[in-house]
Amino acid sequence: MRMVDIIINKRNGKELTEEEIQFFIEGYTNETIPDYQASSLLMAIYFKGMSEQETAALTKAMVESGDTIDLSPIKGHKVDKHSTGGVGDKTTFIVGPLVASVGVPVAKMSGRGLGHTGGTLDKLESIEGFKIEMTKEQFIKNVNENKLAVAGQTGNLAPADKKLYSLRDVTGTVDSIPLIAGSIMSKKLASGADSIVLDVKTGTGAFMKTLSESEALAKAMVTIGNNLGRNTVAVISDMNQPLGYEVGNANEVKEAVEVLQGKKVNDLRSLSLELASHMTVLAEVFETYEQAYHTLEENLENGKAFEAFRRFVQAQGGNINMIDDLFMLPSSKYHLEVKAEQDGYVTGIDAESIGVAAMYLGAGRSTKDDQINHGVGITLKKKIGDQVKNGETLVILHSDQESTSDSTQKVLDAYKIESTNKGENKLIYKVIK
Amino acid sequence: MRMVDIIINKRNGKELTEEEIQFFIEGYTNETIPDYQASSLLMAIYFKGMSEQETAALTKAMVESGDTIDLSPIKGHKVDKHSTGGVGDKTTFIVGPLVASVGVPVAKMSGRGLGHTGGTLDKLESIEGFKIEMTKEQFIKNVNENKLAVAGQTGNLAPADKKLYSLRDVTGTVDSIPLIAGSIMSKKLASGADSIVLDVKTGTGAFMKTLSESEALAKAMVTIGNNLGRNTVAVISDMNQPLGYEVGNANEVKEAVEVLQGKKVNDLRSLSLELASHMTVLAEVFETYEQAYHTLEENLENGKAFEAFRRFVQAQGGNINMIDDLFMLPSSKYHLEVKAEQDGYVTGIDAESIGVAAMYLGAGRSTKDDQINHGVGITLKKKIGDQVKNGETLVILHSDQESTSDSTQKVLDAYKIESTNKGENKLIYKVIK
Repeated sequence: MRMVDIIINKRNGKELTEEEIQFFIEGYTNETIPDYQASSLLMAIYFKGMSEQETAALTKAMVESGDTIDLSPIKGHKVDKHSTGGVGDKTTFIVGPLVASVGVPVAKMSGRGLGHTGGTLDKLESIEGFKIEMTKEQFIKNVNENKLAVAGQTGNLAPADKKLYSLRDVTGTVDSIPLIAGSIMSKKLASGADSIVLDVKTGTGAFMKTLSESEALAKAMVTIGNNLGRNTVAVISDMNQPLGYEVGNANEVKEAVEVLQGKKVNDLRSLSLELASHMTVLAEVFETYEQAYHTLEENLENGKAFEAFRRFVQAQGGNINMIDDLFMLPSSKYHLEVKAEQDGYVTGIDAESIGVAAMYLGAGRSTKDDQINHGVGITLKKKIGDQVKNGETLVILHSDQESTSDSTQKVLDAYKIESTNKGENKLIYKVIK
Repeated sequence: MRMVDIIINKRNGKELTEEEIQFFIEGYTNETIPDYQASSLLMAIYFKGMSEQETAALTKAMVESGDTIDLSPIKGHKVDKHSTGGVGDKTTFIVGPLVASVGVPVAKMSGRGLGHTGGTLDKLESIEGFKIEMTKEQFIKNVNENKLAVAGQTGNLAPADKKLYSLRDVTGTVDSIPLIAGSIMSKKLASGADSIVLDVKTGTGAFMKTLSESEALAKAMVTIGNNLGRNTVAVISDMNQPLGYEVGNANEVKEAVEVLQGKKVNDLRSLSLELASHMTVLAEVFETYEQAYHTLEENLENGKAFEAFRRFVQAQGGNINMIDDLFMLPSSKYHLEVKAEQDGYVTGIDAESIGVAAMYLGAGRSTKDDQINHGVGITLKKKIGDQVKNGETLVILHSDQESTSDSTQKVLDAYKIESTNKGENKLIYKVIK
């Protein structure tokens, strides 16, 4: 088998065989196939696409290129959740305890943030003493005892994907649905869960800007999951504005805890219940989505979910007082208001710009070596559908600096204010099974 | 400027600017742009094509990536000829002397053969003592005195093209008209002629199998030449069978000399006159193609062209006795007949297979380090339109081995014999100016 023939086959629109795809991924991982052949194949894939079978074979080969995590010592049906990346997305802190509250084990491997979206680990480290490093044995023990643990990713998961992703980034081949789908799913599958719920964001602040693109990505990922033996459901949710009202680290933890304590933060609460419902149905704890939703909503209100979160924080060494008294969480020196410069209604809030503004404040990293400042962030005072008057506060910037003109400008650019109210955005567009 | 943006622009169908193309070629030549970005751009070009302006800019940048040959010390209008590669193509040995016979200088840089088509230099070295290495001064003196000299390519012509061609070969990006056209034309333009006549082969034995592909390539090359200030004409000629009756080295020289001595080898003679006519019209020695053709045909018959060939051979140290007595040219030990295995008419002779059969005999190189055997080769006894009877000789294999089953098989595979005569092939399909 020669790599050049594989490239030409794809270029000519032929469906690649599982053997050809395996040959490519194996050869690329062990460096017998050079970058320049990989990149030309990737560009041919960009133009010619990949069939369901090809995409599954690609994902499988990428999973097999490295380690896979064996979650079998964990009792019960393990369900994982993955978001394609949104600003203000702290659903993990609500969904995890919710799912755990009905006995479904959540063994979550998570990453740190880079760029305009924060990382789950960074946010959790706002809680004093919280440890994300632990032995495999400790991780499994925690899940078995508390039904919830979050750890930093260990092992060499899908190294082929890592290598290919770096290459795609510099060769104009990022925007390809089968390649994106394969990339996400290879890491999820290597992480060992039995079932997967995907939160595919759509809108101005999402990687996929249009519903049809988001739907195509969701379908591709669900198909891969199902083809490779994992029940997979994708929820397409809105990212035309940040999720909830808080963007940052400590303030996102705070907002999640408030929801766990019963606060009705509309979009954040609904999306968390939606995702948790699908997860618990996949885990076969409930027969129907409606049954799941009903019980999970009860567990939000009766404190069971909050209790699960407390146990989880305690088990990982976090200072539980900070959860019981949210004012103890890190905060910033200054709280600067950004005010509207016109009358009207909010019709859009570019989430990416809000994320970048938060990063400028120190809540995120622009390079891998940057340090996170857990106390800074942004509180939105207005969301889509809200009326604003000239001079009224749009957001509060939690900053350790007295003035922050770049963040202020980013926020003003992010807010779209029009004279006619277009109403609230839809939150859940579609569920793909 | 970032290479990844150039790749994305082309991928999205945007026309690249001259600056972007120059940035790419310069960066690729001096190795600041890696192979993997070049190959992904090449694949995007494969799918999205290039406009006239882009193709001209690419060619210009490739010319400027290396040396260019200054032919200005040569008096008169210098015309070059280039063939896209055919089997049995010895037109250079007829066209050169023909053009020289009317005073037009031909300063030809030529290459060696690799694969199934022979190289001009290899063929000339069949003549004892013939030297293709000479100083630049000697080369120019020879052209000024005899109007014809052929030398091995010197200098670092279009190194970007050389580098890109190697990359295209292993990344499935060879078959792109603008890339092929730019590749050929960059070398021709760097060689310094004032005008260029291109012989674009079409048919089963050509790189371009269909007339429409050949026409597209011819048009692209003529447009490049004209856009970059060289009058360029392309003749699309047949390669559904080898040109003439001889394929090899010494035997090709022999056939060319016979035509120069007045022998009527139909296709070889006609194509040579056609190409020479366009060259001399471009050199402004004749006003019309008809005037040119008439005088050049006279110079074939009155021996002037042959005389020009003799002077050229003598000036480059060749043993002129071998030209005057063709039996002195190298020959082989054995002459093996390959016979028809059925009755019918020849309707096609796959030139590539005949070329490969000749290579097996030793007439060509399968790797760069192979030695050429000048005496071996193939003589066709039947061409398209000829009737054959079962057992009649199709070709004679001139071999230094007693039996040559692989060459024999290749020849039998090459001949298409059918019960109905489809007549002779057209020789010249189109002239593109």
